[in-house]
Amino acid sequence: MPEDVIFKPIDWVPGGKLRYLDQTRLPQAEVWIETNDHLVVAEAIRTLRVRGAPLIGVAAAYALVLAALSDLATDLNALRQHLRHVADELAATRPTAANLTWALNRMLRSTETCSGPEDARKTLADEARRIHEEDIEANRRIGANGARLLREKATVMTHCNAGALATGGYGTALGVIRAAYLERALRHVFVPETRPLLQGSRLTAWELAREGIPYTLIVDAAAGSTLSNGVVDAVIVGADRIAANGDVANKIGTYPLAVLARENGVPLYVAAPTSTIDLPLASGDAIPIEQRSPDEVTSIRGVSVAAKCGSALNPAFDVTPNTYVTAVITENGVARPPYEESLREVCNAKEPVRG
Amino acid sequence: MPEDVIFKPIDWVPGGKLRYLDQTRLPQAEVWIETNDHLVVAEAIRTLRVRGAPLIGVAAAYALVLAALSDLATDLNALRQHLRHVADELAATRPTAANLTWALNRMLRSTETCSGPEDARKTLADEARRIHEEDIEANRRIGANGARLLREKATVMTHCNAGALATGGYGTALGVIRAAYLERALRHVFVPETRPLLQGSRLTAWELAREGIPYTLIVDAAAGSTLSNGVVDAVIVGADRIAANGDVANKIGTYPLAVLARENGVPLYVAAPTSTIDLPLASGDAIPIEQRSPDEVTSIRGVSVAAKCGSALNPAFDVTPNTYVTAVITENGVARPPYEESLREVCNAKEPVRG
Repeated sequence: MPEDVIFKPIDWVPGGKLRYLDQTRLPQAEVWIETNDHLVVAEAIRTLRVRGAPLIGVAAAYALVLAALSDLATDLNALRQHLRHVADELAATRPTAANLTWALNRMLRSTETCSGPEDARKTLADEARRIHEEDIEANRRIGANGARLLREKATVMTHCNAGALATGGYGTALGVIRAAYLERALRHVFVPETRPLLQGSRLTAWELAREGIPYTLIVDAAAGSTLSNGVVDAVIVGADRIAANGDVANKIGTYPLAVLARENGVPLYVAAPTSTIDLPLASGDAIPIEQRSPDEVTSIRGVSVAAKCGSALNPAFDVTPNTYVTAVITENGVARPPYEESLREVCNAKEPVRG
Repeated sequence: MPEDVIFKPIDWVPGGKLRYLDQTRLPQAEVWIETNDHLVVAEAIRTLRVRGAPLIGVAAAYALVLAALSDLATDLNALRQHLRHVADELAATRPTAANLTWALNRMLRSTETCSGPEDARKTLADEARRIHEEDIEANRRIGANGARLLREKATVMTHCNAGALATGGYGTALGVIRAAYLERALRHVFVPETRPLLQGSRLTAWELAREGIPYTLIVDAAAGSTLSNGVVDAVIVGADRIAANGDVANKIGTYPLAVLARENGVPLYVAAPTSTIDLPLASGDAIPIEQRSPDEVTSIRGVSVAAKCGSALNPAFDVTPNTYVTAVITENGVARPPYEESLREVCNAKEPVRG
């Protein structure tokens, strides 16, 4: 795939519809959904048809446009009240991703100076498109910033899917991998399958295969010996929320990878746009961790696998303390410890900060 | 289940047959296989119908009896030569478990002083039964020795299945859990599912459910945050081979658990009979790690889950360096660092050594 063709898992369709890839059907089928109903989008976020913190933000922004277009309000205040209600519903779909509330708040704020409901509808459509375009541009810059951190012919490990499928396009952790591969600075990617929902084997493998980037799939439990074997130069993951002190919430299994990486002298890089950084949150202790259905653990792709009678727990995320994070790669530069300062700096940067 | 009723996943059937539970069918179906063909047993070991290091040893011992019974040799040397050939075949089924070669060597040695082929056949049958009975007795003593290490109302985490199903009966790590539960010293068990073959969710959950021991199933990647949440008092695992220096080969995912346990101040106990200890092996570096089919990673219970085109690696075991092992619980007592001394002591003990 040439460098300038971006695969977008979501896009606006002229005429007032949103079109997105149903990621639960991958890799067996590539099914696209088109809808003008924001409730369908909310359900798609809840059921992970649309997933990945940055993409959830983009999808929620577009969903708010759909809600504005379908609302008949002729009064700006009535429309804005309706949108605040819809935003609350969307925000409740998944609690951990910072980008969701970030995008919704930005969308609502954009209507503050509008002259009337029609102006607000147009403003919202423009703002959603801008959020989407800025996310892709941020990922390209994250990719460039991250690729500079890798040594020649690096072998890396990622986790879950922080690719084009998790963002407006291009990807965060996979954006770094993509950029490094195009610069011939990357040799191989280890992909843990990422139980329970297998975003590694279903989505990351699908993306890497599409672009011919060499990868090896492993079960999550094999990440430890893969790291201790000395074949991995860096672990690169995305993030769902980063606290002001650099604690990182990301897909369950990230914290073990971080501990194992440090134990084996391998750097752990977190690649995320500044929209994932939650500066008002002092530390990771306060990050809400989504608990999903135990059925995702006791069955796989609809096939029951576990003995009955017991209970199962299914936390979707874990929190990696900042001490395990070598650097946070953002579109505005690379933040390093102490994170209180460096994350504030990249968040407030108008121009890219040097990493 | 009363304390004195032992569930045996394998047993000798009078008349010259071996009967064992096909563990690949659990938990959906309880299917028992009866055979007089040692090649069927070899295939059962290779395909994990019969699995767990101690059980593999017991099964191989019985398989050698079947081979002796079906061989028509009227000359002791011819019979012994045939059995050495069969033993080589059986030893090649799975390379990592120490108990396999341990049991085969013990069986072959038992025929050294026999008077003829009929005497050898009887001797082998007696020796296999003794290996089986001794394994169960060893597990009971491991259970008692291990339960003493747990504090009142402990919550523990295990990995894979080191239960009755992995042994002649009773279990090693699950033997400790079973003994502690009967002494009301155990509150709860966390069970990682253990991809790729799900011995945690299929087998350990099945065993715990049978005995009413409360447990919670988690994906392997959730073990990290479960340990960092401070709810686990000890991690207890089995072993496939223990080197003289205390390095432990066990199911893939054990090394990550060991690192995460130490990082969170949780002791890691390895429960195994002395037949699992390979004193001639100086360290874990020389333990052969079985590589199984990538299909076990890319499909689950026959359902294809991964994107095509990429490769997958499927190491069945990893090696945990001795520095992460708090203690090795054997039938002859509890070995602690430095392991060179303590493991030799428990291996050479005629009477139980105090832990």
